[in-house]
Amino acid sequence: MTEAAEAALPDSPIAVLSGPTFAREVAQGLPTAVTLACADTALAQKLVELIGIPLFRPYLSDDPVGAEIGGAVKNVLAIACGIVTGKKMGDNTRAALITRGLAEMARLGVAKGAKPETLMGLSGLGDLTLTCNGPQSRNMSLGIELGEGRALKEVLAERKSIAEGVFSAATVVALAAKLGVEMPICAAVDQVINHGADIEETIAGLLNRPFRAEAPTAN
Amino acid sequence: MTEAAEAALPDSPIAVLSGPTFAREVAQGLPTAVTLACADTALAQKLVELIGIPLFRPYLSDDPVGAEIGGAVKNVLAIACGIVTGKKMGDNTRAALITRGLAEMARLGVAKGAKPETLMGLSGLGDLTLTCNGPQSRNMSLGIELGEGRALKEVLAERKSIAEGVFSAATVVALAAKLGVEMPICAAVDQVINHGADIEETIAGLLNRPFRAEAPTAN
Repeated sequence: MTEAAEAALPDSPIAVLSGPTFAREVAQGLPTAVTLACADTALAQKLVELIGIPLFRPYLSDDPVGAEIGGAVKNVLAIACGIVTGKKMGDNTRAALITRGLAEMARLGVAKGAKPETLMGLSGLGDLTLTCNGPQSRNMSLGIELGEGRALKEVLAERKSIAEGVFSAATVVALAAKLGVEMPICAAVDQVINHGADIEETIAGLLNRPFRAEAPTAN
Repeated sequence: MTEAAEAALPDSPIAVLSGPTFAREVAQGLPTAVTLACADTALAQKLVELIGIPLFRPYLSDDPVGAEIGGAVKNVLAIACGIVTGKKMGDNTRAALITRGLAEMARLGVAKGAKPETLMGLSGLGDLTLTCNGPQSRNMSLGIELGEGRALKEVLAERKSIAEGVFSAATVVALAAKLGVEMPICAAVDQVINHGADIEETIAGLLNRPFRAEAPTAN
């Protein structure tokens, strides 16, 4: 999005506001914290002072690219978390998917020039843990229906709202391929959504990958 | 724990196994992933081969200290997440607490010589997101009862199981003070649990802190 915004408005500074924000809760005045990222730190500081209140706390970042990667990738991972939830695979599995998913997200971010710590913040992990644990999320609820055995076409036909992850799965996988980043969970979601892969076989494929080192940016 | 184990068994190598593992689900054979950390990488590799199966996937780490910090601090943060859940403050608030809580956990880990990436892994973030979203967690369910307005003494008297966070809150805060690490969320839990602080006032205090930079290890 920042690339598109910069192309459209080449003389304007771009800032990114992103984080764990179910809109209904923000509107109700429930406490919410977000990342406010801008390359121009003085401008970011000014924006924080303009929009920040105790119930809506913006945290400063100088990494707009990092802040937007989280928002895109988390929708794909939420579909994966929905699928394992629909299949009643348990909370341990979902926590592992969130953690290994964050490692994928961080690898992609770093390859796009983001700082790894941004992905560990509100716009990365924060949004991820919100979306992957709340059936309020459109992407997670779509995944749940797939995990329960329903067909994608049928689920999409019934919906008025858009589950962005259906579209971003392919985009994320293409970007990862271009940058040489391994993203097995996102690739699995893309296979299931866009290439008719069998869910059971895809999960077995993930579980049978070789054991490896954990550190998120080292592999 | 590694310090205690090394003191008791000075000639034995120590490895740490930790991660998002509700025991009931592991016993049911639901897929689970964990961190296996040992300073001796060859030994760690051997342990991974001995205990790893597709449904129980250990990820290698050479950072035992990092692996154990997550397991201790997450119990304190789970009480905080329980309190805001009991008070019906919404999913945005809980996601923000998890994220800012992870930043505290990482600062403490780094001060104890851990690698920050370990805290972002299964034994850190993974266990945190599991414990802070699942009412199966003893610490989170304790926090929920406190958030609903019950007295700690009364809640503890009814329980057979132990909510570790009640004990580790004071230990974590003392260690943080010794190492000069700022941990406002853990300190708030300690105030509520051990010093009779009012929950409403403590939450207001957290929300009224000055706005700041987000990066977890920079402050």
